[in-house]
Amino acid sequence: MAARQLHLNAFLMGVGHHEAAWRHPRAEPAGITDVRHYQRLAEIAERGKLDSVFLADGLALWGNVRHNALGGLEPLTLLAALATVTEHIGLIATVSTTYNEPFHVARKFASLDHISGGRAGWNIVTSASEAEARNFGVERPAHKERYDRAAEFLQVVTELWDSWEDGAILGDRRSGDYADTARIHALDHVGRHFRVRGPLNTSRPPQGHPLLVQAGSSEDGKEFAARYAEAVFTAQQTLQEGQEFYSDLKSRLGRYGRRADELLILPGISPIIGSTEREALQLERELEELIIPAYGVQQLSGILGVDLSDHPLDSPLPEVAQPADGQQSRFKLVTDLARRERLTLRELIGRLAGGRGHRVVTGTPERIADQIQEWFTSGAADGFNIMPPVLPSGLADFVDHVVPELQARGLFRTEYGGRTLRQNYGLARPASRFEQKAPVAS
Amino acid sequence: MAARQLHLNAFLMGVGHHEAAWRHPRAEPAGITDVRHYQRLAEIAERGKLDSVFLADGLALWGNVRHNALGGLEPLTLLAALATVTEHIGLIATVSTTYNEPFHVARKFASLDHISGGRAGWNIVTSASEAEARNFGVERPAHKERYDRAAEFLQVVTELWDSWEDGAILGDRRSGDYADTARIHALDHVGRHFRVRGPLNTSRPPQGHPLLVQAGSSEDGKEFAARYAEAVFTAQQTLQEGQEFYSDLKSRLGRYGRRADELLILPGISPIIGSTEREALQLERELEELIIPAYGVQQLSGILGVDLSDHPLDSPLPEVAQPADGQQSRFKLVTDLARRERLTLRELIGRLAGGRGHRVVTGTPERIADQIQEWFTSGAADGFNIMPPVLPSGLADFVDHVVPELQARGLFRTEYGGRTLRQNYGLARPASRFEQKAPVAS
Repeated sequence: MAARQLHLNAFLMGVGHHEAAWRHPRAEPAGITDVRHYQRLAEIAERGKLDSVFLADGLALWGNVRHNALGGLEPLTLLAALATVTEHIGLIATVSTTYNEPFHVARKFASLDHISGGRAGWNIVTSASEAEARNFGVERPAHKERYDRAAEFLQVVTELWDSWEDGAILGDRRSGDYADTARIHALDHVGRHFRVRGPLNTSRPPQGHPLLVQAGSSEDGKEFAARYAEAVFTAQQTLQEGQEFYSDLKSRLGRYGRRADELLILPGISPIIGSTEREALQLERELEELIIPAYGVQQLSGILGVDLSDHPLDSPLPEVAQPADGQQSRFKLVTDLARRERLTLRELIGRLAGGRGHRVVTGTPERIADQIQEWFTSGAADGFNIMPPVLPSGLADFVDHVVPELQARGLFRTEYGGRTLRQNYGLARPASRFEQKAPVAS
Repeated sequence: MAARQLHLNAFLMGVGHHEAAWRHPRAEPAGITDVRHYQRLAEIAERGKLDSVFLADGLALWGNVRHNALGGLEPLTLLAALATVTEHIGLIATVSTTYNEPFHVARKFASLDHISGGRAGWNIVTSASEAEARNFGVERPAHKERYDRAAEFLQVVTELWDSWEDGAILGDRRSGDYADTARIHALDHVGRHFRVRGPLNTSRPPQGHPLLVQAGSSEDGKEFAARYAEAVFTAQQTLQEGQEFYSDLKSRLGRYGRRADELLILPGISPIIGSTEREALQLERELEELIIPAYGVQQLSGILGVDLSDHPLDSPLPEVAQPADGQQSRFKLVTDLARRERLTLRELIGRLAGGRGHRVVTGTPERIADQIQEWFTSGAADGFNIMPPVLPSGLADFVDHVVPELQARGLFRTEYGGRTLRQNYGLARPASRFEQKAPVAS
């Protein structure tokens, strides 16, 4: 049996994950609405034999567009456009369960899965922000309520994907029988949040179910992931935190009758790469110098739920109380980081600008590979969510310099083995729950 | 000034508009979920210099999948995949206002418009069927109610497209000013159906507004079209009906402060093409012989709202009463056709199988061109919605044989003049309603 292999996802965030990326000479800010920019990123990722590309999303114009390149494209629409210029790479789109209907979501992902030949993945989010609620005319639902809806949403979506069994399509021109209607099923789902009759009006996706991805780190989020998710993107700053999260989450799967290897854990890492340490530090410094402090303070104020705009930049982060709702895990991560490394407000902003709370690693390709290998072999990761500071250059640097290093160490594929996203991730294709078991011979 | 020119849209319906198309040797039924099939269709349409391609849609598996190739792809997702392999052709997707949220719809069309470089169009439907309501857990709203929602939906969507003024993006790396936030606007829309704060989180679409298309022929539908639509797809069987519809609809525009040329009327036509009349009739007969009568009876029963399954196939259509709700214009069209031509049930099924109530014209390219020219020059059409019986062969026949005939007669472009769908259709690009007028010099 081959040695355990890394799984690598390229997180495509506009023109880079660093908040000042758009100001850097290597970035082209107009790229954020230019499909060719994203096609180029997908092609680079595929050249590097990465498992997948991923697009985050929110349903409001948040952040401060005065100082950041926002206003990009809707992920599902964009990924359909990337499907046609790629062949192997998985395509993961973020879609909310709070402000959507299961029928639409099931259908769009089934369509993307057909279009891409089985490369679609869904990053399931529950949309925590007040700003999003206001674009849909509702009060923001409480955390528990959002996860309750998400669970029922998942049940309906997966049933809709199952509603056409494999083999339901006969396509028999002679008899005129296009489909075996005994193998296409209504759901007649009636639940707390949804009533959906079905069947879906798009036939069964090539993967059976497009891959289910999740990123919540709250208790509800981890429980949801343990039950449904097949890959988890997560933000962990230290190896110890990474190990704790990894063993915690994996230990929860048994409750739902799942094996530990049925869910992959991919912490985020923002690699600032140089051919020498000095060159990498130079790039880091260039990016830091482009940060607009007022912008960073505003972002941080949003994460922490307090107004820090009058706090001196060169003093330590003040004591702040955890807000009742919202991104609690992100709050803890940021305040822990500030305490652990005794960061001033300015330093903290610099650290967060690189990866919004994700781990930033600056150095040579060897050093980046060392870090990846350490986490991978120490029970902290099944792979990584790669968040280049500037795009496309940072992704090209990773693919051209870090990937060969990982390949040389036997940690990463040198060719694609399969054609679907599930095959890239080494995950099984689920059967339809409506499938009749073959009758047992008596 | 150049002579008035036809506008031609290719209506892409699975493997053909004829209900038995999937059984014909020229069709490949697996095409209905194969992106390459649709890419080929889009490429053929673009080779013919057509204005646009169009995908119909419904939100339920209706019709009888036992005998027809159903279960295809969601239009917006599919058109994004076609955008990347075409350069000039418009991409029109059907999306419902009854089972969607304006924020999502505005964003997806804005994204498709960016991805395609200004080639997106939205065919606005209100989803009349009971089957669709059941996939969204609601009672089917009444006709008036659906159009009331649609009007408010349109208001919100167009405001969201306007919420970023042209020129709001500065992209000034030096100063760090990405956008002029004074030119990005909240809507704070509060209406009967929606409360939407805005702004959109995708910047202004290249066309300002993606093209607005509509197809309803009821009173509410025509009034809605007169107010909002820029192109209308319609089913008209006779020249006189076509002329009446054309002058009726055009006469309504003035009420909304619009000129008659701000809306294009495109009747459907299903051309069954042969290099001789005999060859065309042969193709028509081949398709008719593939019709499954029980399937046709079921379809017709659905349109008329009565069960015709026990009615003798070779007797005339019985008297049937118009249903209270549903597709009233389609009911009238079908019963008028049966009466006018004294059709038996079997003959009526044959006629409807070709174009579902749209006009079928069988003959040589010259004869098809004659029909198109007659309607175009007699006040019945600004162009046509081309519905080939079998795809891709029927579209290739139209493009390779009918289009050159229309070009030779000076009725149709030989090269694209612009790059956007609005430019193809000769329609202006709307300014943002938030745009400040330049101050008048005093």
